[in-house]
Amino acid sequence: MDFEAFFKGELEGLHEEGRYRVFADLERQRGNFPRATRYTENGQQDVTVWCSNDYLGMGQNAQVIEAMKDAIDHCGAGAGGTRNISGTNHYHVLLERELADLHGKESALIFTSGYISNWAALGTLGQKIPGLIIFSDALNHASMIEGIRYAKCERVIWKHNDIKDLEAKLAAADPKAPKLIAFESVYSMDGDIAPIKEICDLADKYGAMTYLDEVHAVGMYGAHGGGIAEREGLMDRLTIIEGTLGKAFGVMGGYITGSTALCDFIRSFASGFIFTTALPPSLAAGAVASIRHLKTSQLERFAHQERVRRLRSMLDARGIPHMPNPSHIVPVMVGDAAKCKWISDLLLDNFGIYVQPINYPTVPKKTERLRITPTPLHSDGDMEHLVGALHQLWSRCALARAVA
Amino acid sequence: MDFEAFFKGELEGLHEEGRYRVFADLERQRGNFPRATRYTENGQQDVTVWCSNDYLGMGQNAQVIEAMKDAIDHCGAGAGGTRNISGTNHYHVLLERELADLHGKESALIFTSGYISNWAALGTLGQKIPGLIIFSDALNHASMIEGIRYAKCERVIWKHNDIKDLEAKLAAADPKAPKLIAFESVYSMDGDIAPIKEICDLADKYGAMTYLDEVHAVGMYGAHGGGIAEREGLMDRLTIIEGTLGKAFGVMGGYITGSTALCDFIRSFASGFIFTTALPPSLAAGAVASIRHLKTSQLERFAHQERVRRLRSMLDARGIPHMPNPSHIVPVMVGDAAKCKWISDLLLDNFGIYVQPINYPTVPKKTERLRITPTPLHSDGDMEHLVGALHQLWSRCALARAVA
Ligand SMILES: Cc1ncc(COP(=O)(O)O)c(C=O)c1O
Ligand SMILES: Cc1ncc(COP(=O)(O)O)c(C=O)c1O
Repeated sequence: MDFEAFFKGELEGLHEEGRYRVFADLERQRGNFPRATRYTENGQQDVTVWCSNDYLGMGQNAQVIEAMKDAIDHCGAGAGGTRNISGTNHYHVLLERELADLHGKESALIFTSGYISNWAALGTLGQKIPGLIIFSDALNHASMIEGIRYAKCERVIWKHNDIKDLEAKLAAADPKAPKLIAFESVYSMDGDIAPIKEICDLADKYGAMTYLDEVHAVGMYGAHGGGIAEREGLMDRLTIIEGTLGKAFGVMGGYITGSTALCDFIRSFASGFIFTTALPPSLAAGAVASIRHLKTSQLERFAHQERVRRLRSMLDARGIPHMPNPSHIVPVMVGDAAKCKWISDLLLDNFGIYVQPINYPTVPKKTERLRITPTPLHSDGDMEHLVGALHQLWSRCALARAVA
Repeated sequence: MDFEAFFKGELEGLHEEGRYRVFADLERQRGNFPRATRYTENGQQDVTVWCSNDYLGMGQNAQVIEAMKDAIDHCGAGAGGTRNISGTNHYHVLLERELADLHGKESALIFTSGYISNWAALGTLGQKIPGLIIFSDALNHASMIEGIRYAKCERVIWKHNDIKDLEAKLAAADPKAPKLIAFESVYSMDGDIAPIKEICDLADKYGAMTYLDEVHAVGMYGAHGGGIAEREGLMDRLTIIEGTLGKAFGVMGGYITGSTALCDFIRSFASGFIFTTALPPSLAAGAVASIRHLKTSQLERFAHQERVRRLRSMLDARGIPHMPNPSHIVPVMVGDAAKCKWISDLLLDNFGIYVQPINYPTVPKKTERLRITPTPLHSDGDMEHLVGALHQLWSRCALARAVA
């Protein structure tokens, strides 16, 4: 077989569908977020980033930065081993305590990413608990889907955020089988929020564990940044809360929290936890500083919510259609891969505005969009520039306006 | 089902088998490697780490440290997004160029870990190339095994490092089926090295791609630290060379290198690459500095090899049995999980020597061992202390001596 020809052919297909991905080559400007320098073949350009998942700008927070540099000065660059073989650093221990406390759980376990935490935790539970059935929301993130596949246990997909469908499916399953319900709080592409309480009620009724991915909510919701479950007073009703250190906390890494036995079980059996180099001390230290800051400071959360409301009203004033939702994510719908990329290219080249087009497989085909994430550090001026640019492009390419 | 009881029961089983893992809680002392502070319930203890995978001490290298801190000062803490959605940083681009050059390949692609690079690359190749058969060495690392399972393609396991068995299996397979041979250069638990040339010859004969994991060799072998394949002048014969930034390079992250089409293909289709926050700029910058340093400096490699030889001869002088192998890994065999843990505990508590016991599932049962990794920074005095302690314990617990 001619492997090279095969690879090229597959890539050709992506080009034809207009969904070949070109990464913007950026250099974030510290202290100047959301500004970045973009490297292109023709030189450099200053851009404003409008699609970062550093939702609160904590990646630029002075305490986080200092904590990271301090840890490097103290301990050096990497962890030097897997968690078991010389790689556990005292910062990991502190971080796990901080996370358990954040979610009101006995224990926490950190992974190299949120992706790995979902994959390894769900995969291990499904493989090891005999007869486990995982009930998975239809719009769960790729990392949960891969984890559930990896589990090779029975899996039942329920309609997105649909309590009736979930109940019907729980009721139809063997009452004696152990069950786990896996879902997210904030769904990151549509920005809608799961009915956590109702799901927990069903879990109680059917004796199921609950597994909640709060990746797009931690740091941003709840009085201490514990996520939507904290805001709604539901943290103690969830068996496992999973999160990331790479979005609102501004660093990198992932985690689960739950009972001591559960975390110890995953720690002891999950291949994706055991057989990999541990997080560098600097990342753990930065995450600790970030979590601690957001446990007490409400400033970032308030400013964030205010900026989101403001952007939405400015978009409304110009008739730019965006998906309504109760979260901080502002999806501006385009519905066509090529057009979406075209708008995004024009925004970048002509306006210095960077919003990556979101296309399949991240979202279903025909729902291609610009996913805009305002942060506390986007000014009124930034917003006017963005909305003005969208307004011009909407006229130019005859895109539908929202009806008031 | 009582989930808590289930978890506790499983953990109980590990305790009974003597393979429940207790992580040493360490704080590496920068500038003082291999020394670390160990946190215990009764306070702190100074220890010498003898089982780090920071093989060359690059995690303490001043250029690496400065590069990381500079990047934090320049760009902040995290990448702020996935590679596609605002998370590509200029340091990633530079790192990928550096890695491609290191292995003499057209392109490189970085992942959050070596684990994910193996899992995602092998999984994606196996899923996407119709009819692919993966020929996997029997002792391949967990991350490769999981990647091959994930691929769900046909898989043929050949006897570890056994060219005859590999050829028999290649010959028995459908000649028209596309094939991939997956193996490692240095096997990290036994320290033995694959016959890379012979494997490449077979790959040519049977039209197979080759996938080589150089995780335990990059930085340490070859004139530029390109690994065993560089040392043996074979880099151009491998389709894909995979490595980590978390061992000899001292930081964290993983990568593959290969043709531009191949890397672009994995970049475009691998879930574990696409749906996860990118490496922080500081890690990429640190890795670039480390790779560049080891491309020109031979000092660390020479000192490393000399230290390994010295330790082996000191062990020989005292009759402490260690597995002979042509690499830098010195496995001192114990062959019993409980005894191995007991020795390791005594070394730590009574001698301030930290060597984690290696047990199942990392190595087969009955081959439990102390896996010792000398670095250029272990002094003669450190070695005398280690060998003296082992000598005492060998006498005390009546372990077999090696016969001269
Ligand atoms: C819902 C959800 N879960 C998990 C992840 C993975 O987290 P991480 O980026 O830390 O790997 C993501 C996105 O990256 C996500 O959107
Ligand atoms: C052979 C081999 N491949 C891959 C890995 C994973 O690399 P990383 O630690 O960067 O995840 C390891 C060890 O951790 C390994 O021993």
